Amino acid sequence: MDERVHDHAEVLVDWSARIEAGDDVVLRVAEGAHDLAVAVAEKLGERGANLLSVYDSAEVARAYTRAHDGKFDPDPEYQLALYEQADSVLSLGGGRNTTAGADVPSDRRRALANAREGIREARLATDWVSTVHPTRSLAQQAGMSYAAYREFVYDAVLRDWDALAGEMGRLKRRLDDGSEVRIVGEGTDLTMSVENRVAVNSAASVAYDSHNLPSGEVFTAPAETEGTVTFDVPMTINDRRVRDVRLEFADGEVVDFAAEQGADVIADVLDTDAGAKRLGELGVGMNRGIDRVTDNILFDEKMGGTVHLALGRAYASNFPAGHEDERTESAVHVDLIRWMNEGSRLEIDGEVVQEDGRFVWEDD
Amino acid sequence: MDERVHDHAEVLVDWSARIEAGDDVVLRVAEGAHDLAVAVAEKLGERGANLLSVYDSAEVARAYTRAHDGKFDPDPEYQLALYEQADSVLSLGGGRNTTAGADVPSDRRRALANAREGIREARLATDWVSTVHPTRSLAQQAGMSYAAYREFVYDAVLRDWDALAGEMGRLKRRLDDGSEVRIVGEGTDLTMSVENRVAVNSAASVAYDSHNLPSGEVFTAPAETEGTVTFDVPMTINDRRVRDVRLEFADGEVVDFAAEQGADVIADVLDTDAGAKRLGELGVGMNRGIDRVTDNILFDEKMGGTVHLALGRAYASNFPAGHEDERTESAVHVDLIRWMNEGSRLEIDGEVVQEDGRFVWEDD
Repeated sequence: MDERVHDHAEVLVDWSARIEAGDDVVLRVAEGAHDLAVAVAEKLGERGANLLSVYDSAEVARAYTRAHDGKFDPDPEYQLALYEQADSVLSLGGGRNTTAGADVPSDRRRALANAREGIREARLATDWVSTVHPTRSLAQQAGMSYAAYREFVYDAVLRDWDALAGEMGRLKRRLDDGSEVRIVGEGTDLTMSVENRVAVNSAASVAYDSHNLPSGEVFTAPAETEGTVTFDVPMTINDRRVRDVRLEFADGEVVDFAAEQGADVIADVLDTDAGAKRLGELGVGMNRGIDRVTDNILFDEKMGGTVHLALGRAYASNFPAGHEDERTESAVHVDLIRWMNEGSRLEIDGEVVQEDGRFVWEDD
Repeated sequence: MDERVHDHAEVLVDWSARIEAGDDVVLRVAEGAHDLAVAVAEKLGERGANLLSVYDSAEVARAYTRAHDGKFDPDPEYQLALYEQADSVLSLGGGRNTTAGADVPSDRRRALANAREGIREARLATDWVSTVHPTRSLAQQAGMSYAAYREFVYDAVLRDWDALAGEMGRLKRRLDDGSEVRIVGEGTDLTMSVENRVAVNSAASVAYDSHNLPSGEVFTAPAETEGTVTFDVPMTINDRRVRDVRLEFADGEVVDFAAEQGADVIADVLDTDAGAKRLGELGVGMNRGIDRVTDNILFDEKMGGTVHLALGRAYASNFPAGHEDERTESAVHVDLIRWMNEGSRLEIDGEVVQEDGRFVWEDD
């Protein structure tokens, strides 16, 4: 066993979830996450928290969902009670097959998700944190050896989070004080308003309203988007490959698009609803421990030296109190990522904040 | 995968637990029971039940319990709510190491069990059923190959339960109508009163107030035990081996004992409290699918052609309504098993019911 699993558990329990004695914790354990679950259980015991482990198996879920007739009971009370009364929900991803549910009909999957919306909301109302244990299946998804993938995951997770939170705080303040963001680079010249928005310093801790480990991004909700942007990080969206997507915006909406691969996927996304044509998120990846694409959005969107834009739904946390209902609503939230390498720059109100993938303060 | 896992799941869900549409089911999954969990999830989906899976990992429990300072919170409400509101709790045993918790201090283990008594009671108040998935670890405990152990488990589980329930009903009626049971054989001549007792036909179904799969025994709560009994089935009690135990009773209490191996274990048990010196159970094993000792009480005590007697706690289900508090109370319930082979007989009120391991009606 990789001894760093204990460090991972400690970051999750102490930095991310801020577990204290007496906390009621639900630990969701994916099929391949056993070793991390054992290490997390040890930390929870040390902290004097209470523990209930849920078996979050993709194969169990597949078997159940496929066999059911699709008329799912809405929010069964015994499950709702568990999550409503829990203080923290720690989800340990890491399965044995990323396509374990590939033959579950999508309408059946949607029916289950819809019937369990109250349970999902109860879970998201706790101090929840999602992380992943490095498994061979995720290494395969990333096109990496198991050994190299473990290095990758622990480099991303075992950061000096306090220091990174401080650095991200600098960008958050610039975004909060600024009015207009401009992204310039090859095939890209895009402007967005960030007026009256609150940037979130996503420092992998519930103390920062950040629920992913690893995290390491600052994100906000843009408006009035104008211009063109090209995304050069290849991705898998709805199980299909997408590469070199170009979006053209006018008046805040996508008015034209193209892609080297997967243009039909983008067309489907844009067709979902009105909100899907607008941007719900501008995120700036600042985790330098993530230095390569692994086809896993939990990691990809936090890569240091990238920005991502999401079509669709915006987060309420980016709006001042009382203004949350001004956010873009949509059934989708699809991230697209762009390397900010050689020749790229990020400006706030005409001032360069990042150039050639490096923040101006990194030159200090 | 052994295809019989699907038959096992069907017996569990339909015969044992009587699951119906809308039932709120908690599925507890041991580390090695994944394949059975998938098969059970499929059946639960087919029946239209609701499903929450709990990860019942011995290694997670060990890590948590060892790391905790031992001052466990009493019955955390979020866990209590889950079990109080569940209709059925299906426990799938089958770990990867039967001694996974061997280095948890016993006082720590007891402290956790005591702090969670309400949760345990809530679980036992549901239509609960415990079964095991055949794992390599259990095969090892039984001293068997994995292939042979699978045959053994499925022979024990995949019975014609309806027919066996009918046969067991014959013995139940004889016990309910009778006053005195006598067991005779090598080193054995024991009499017990079963007056005013209710024998339980343990037919592996909640419909029979039977909660083990496999089951296949008829049991009652004896009183006024007199005489001597020898147990020739070797067992592991409190992690120690016990062989050829002889107990001598007078006035319902053990007055002398001996053992070829593990006499100190028996002495410890008898010393627990006053109830530990009395018999809490007389059980008659009637599952002919279980034809060998596997050092697992779930199977051993149901072997066709055996009887078992338990020192300690009696079950309320063996007493007429209103008389439950007449039962023997004790912190322990330790089963000891005797083959009823050549030369042995079981009599009720002087009439032979079983001789040389065969019931009189089996000769038909």
